[in-house]
Amino acid sequence: MALVVQKYGGSSVATAERIRRVAERIVETKKQGNDVVVVVSAMGDTTDELLDLAQQVNPTPPPREMDMLLTSGERISNALVAMAISSLGAQAQSFTGSQAGVITTSSHGSAKIIDVTPGRVRSALDEGKIVLVAGFQGVAQDTKDITTLGRGGSDTTAVALAAALKADVCEIYTDVDGVYSADPRIVPDAKRLETVSFEEMLELAACGAKVLMLRCVEYARRYNTPVHVRSSYSTKPGTLVAGSMEDIPVEEAILTGVAHDRSEAKITVVGLDDKPGYAAKVFRAVADAEINIDMVLQNVSKVDTGKTDITFTLPRELGPLGVEKLTKLKDEIGFTDLLYDDHIGKVSLVGAGMKSHPGVTATFCESLSNAGINIELISTSEIRISVLCRDTELDDAVRALHAAFDLGGDEEAVVYGGTGR
Amino acid sequence: MALVVQKYGGSSVATAERIRRVAERIVETKKQGNDVVVVVSAMGDTTDELLDLAQQVNPTPPPREMDMLLTSGERISNALVAMAISSLGAQAQSFTGSQAGVITTSSHGSAKIIDVTPGRVRSALDEGKIVLVAGFQGVAQDTKDITTLGRGGSDTTAVALAAALKADVCEIYTDVDGVYSADPRIVPDAKRLETVSFEEMLELAACGAKVLMLRCVEYARRYNTPVHVRSSYSTKPGTLVAGSMEDIPVEEAILTGVAHDRSEAKITVVGLDDKPGYAAKVFRAVADAEINIDMVLQNVSKVDTGKTDITFTLPRELGPLGVEKLTKLKDEIGFTDLLYDDHIGKVSLVGAGMKSHPGVTATFCESLSNAGINIELISTSEIRISVLCRDTELDDAVRALHAAFDLGGDEEAVVYGGTGR
Repeated sequence: MALVVQKYGGSSVATAERIRRVAERIVETKKQGNDVVVVVSAMGDTTDELLDLAQQVNPTPPPREMDMLLTSGERISNALVAMAISSLGAQAQSFTGSQAGVITTSSHGSAKIIDVTPGRVRSALDEGKIVLVAGFQGVAQDTKDITTLGRGGSDTTAVALAAALKADVCEIYTDVDGVYSADPRIVPDAKRLETVSFEEMLELAACGAKVLMLRCVEYARRYNTPVHVRSSYSTKPGTLVAGSMEDIPVEEAILTGVAHDRSEAKITVVGLDDKPGYAAKVFRAVADAEINIDMVLQNVSKVDTGKTDITFTLPRELGPLGVEKLTKLKDEIGFTDLLYDDHIGKVSLVGAGMKSHPGVTATFCESLSNAGINIELISTSEIRISVLCRDTELDDAVRALHAAFDLGGDEEAVVYGGTGR
Repeated sequence: MALVVQKYGGSSVATAERIRRVAERIVETKKQGNDVVVVVSAMGDTTDELLDLAQQVNPTPPPREMDMLLTSGERISNALVAMAISSLGAQAQSFTGSQAGVITTSSHGSAKIIDVTPGRVRSALDEGKIVLVAGFQGVAQDTKDITTLGRGGSDTTAVALAAALKADVCEIYTDVDGVYSADPRIVPDAKRLETVSFEEMLELAACGAKVLMLRCVEYARRYNTPVHVRSSYSTKPGTLVAGSMEDIPVEEAILTGVAHDRSEAKITVVGLDDKPGYAAKVFRAVADAEINIDMVLQNVSKVDTGKTDITFTLPRELGPLGVEKLTKLKDEIGFTDLLYDDHIGKVSLVGAGMKSHPGVTATFCESLSNAGINIELISTSEIRISVLCRDTELDDAVRALHAAFDLGGDEEAVVYGGTGR
């Protein structure tokens, strides 16, 4: 008998009809002899509607009250799913995140799970019940206030519960068939991946793939909890995110997919003194504003002036804040100009295969060049190459790379040979 | 400095705009130097909408899950009101019924408050905060499950909190100006009452007046907590429900109002043996089905047959159940027929004045007779006369009584003299 944790997203439970279908699927899983724990997001657009209501009564709502408000959404959907399961003759019990033992930091709206102590869940399972747990929420360790986990928090709740209960698998049900080699809306012949290692999924998520949130994948990797991303509208297998890329035999390592991201902006600090400490001041100023920096480029300084430029990317909604913070420090840091660009796009190729196959970078750049796309900045890791280009060229860039590395359709991804990266 | 508990009903907080207005009123009360605790119902029709959703996924939803579901409504409205208060520069904190120390029985959907231990509320008040408490809910003493209190539960929550905190007054804000001498929609010259004693309000509520639920008034009387029923749309004083009728000087005791009730049905057990124990069997059968009986009439038995008829009233929605239970016992109890009538109306005259003024009953019956209304059953208490009539004649009955006792407009209620009740 296996222990299965399932998570259903908002669109899967958006109506009474869909709730009943989800209940049927859950009861079917139970009938196969499994222990079943289910994490449910709020119905449909409930979270956004509650956010909107909050905005109408207070443009800057107090975070504690915001979490009291938003957690109602999951409470509603979980109770309804438990009722639907009950109408099918099975026993179900719903718990809030707090009741299920999800302990978090106290950052309202972006709390992180510190620990999961699922005693009541385990007891209910031992009584033969199907257990519902409200996703996206927990209780703060110090204040005992209810907290929410930030976007994608229900996925993280599900994986964290699966890890704490030592579940055999965590099934994430969503409205796509699995993880694809690229966004199928941009690349028509994008292919569903059968499996993806934890590290590759981390890179895909970090580079813009929205099917699983980064925090959720980090948690899965840390506790080695397999995550099966599937469609809630069919019974087809989806994508299994499991295993470390270290365990993939060299000859089997391939390129996995292309991710894209439109959510960033670029800041260039022009004419910075190329002396020790000045770049640090720039990054410290940005970090103090709690802005995460993604890609960084520092050019070699100009010989005649002894000055250099630093370029970095950050989340677009924090762009104006970053500009504001750096502008205030202009005299102190001493730079000639500050350039802001929020029309950038980031495209990334991810794959364990590039570790062992030379020439990937060359092919990467050639394919973009052939498509008439200018590369503005490059950043790489062991298994990823990311570049910035114009946001208007982003879709073309995705398609060019996907085709250049044959990631689509029925063909295996072919990794081109070459003379080294 | 006074401690004021305010309760706002669903229509008062149905939209973001109304929530902001309620917040303004609350902050104004605080600025006058009071400690303020506010109980808020769910927004608008939320509770009914959640009930409907539940019905769609399960026609007989498990009670525990129903309470997990319904309590979300109050959670949402309280968090939003707290946010609105915060936007006006005052400090607010919201608590669920459980967090506020509302301890109840474990009857999901109709739990009764056993105790209120408002420690966290008191602490928040001492910190200068306005406190919001979700109405209509508590936590079961034995199971620790969340419970709801049944219709009108938010009023009961407010009064119970006011009693536990020894508040100076409990203000119930609703969409009528106060308690009226009769339903203004039926009687155009119905008058708003300035004050009503606890006992009279109990009778009015028990006889169909919907402005305050019976349980709430019982609680207020038990703890001697004054209840001020006011409109949330104006600042006019409403009706103060306070004091015992025992404290009203005889010469000031008057008739207070006319209540009506369309929610009952009538069952007549025909041809019951007029021997000890048979009537008891009838009532036991009904009680075992958890049906509350209201009015009872047992006629003198017929001399020739030694049989009698028993008539009683019960909530209409339980009518068919009552008929079913008694039909099953026909042979055991031995009666000739069972009559069911769900077209009855009940009209009641309430007032401390009838204790000391003879002739009220006579005037009562004469006025109905003059209006062509047939009285089918009479039931009285020290301060109330109730009769059954056809439901089609109920509005006329209300008007006839209201006029006969001059309860309307600017005139004081005149109690007719006579030769005794």
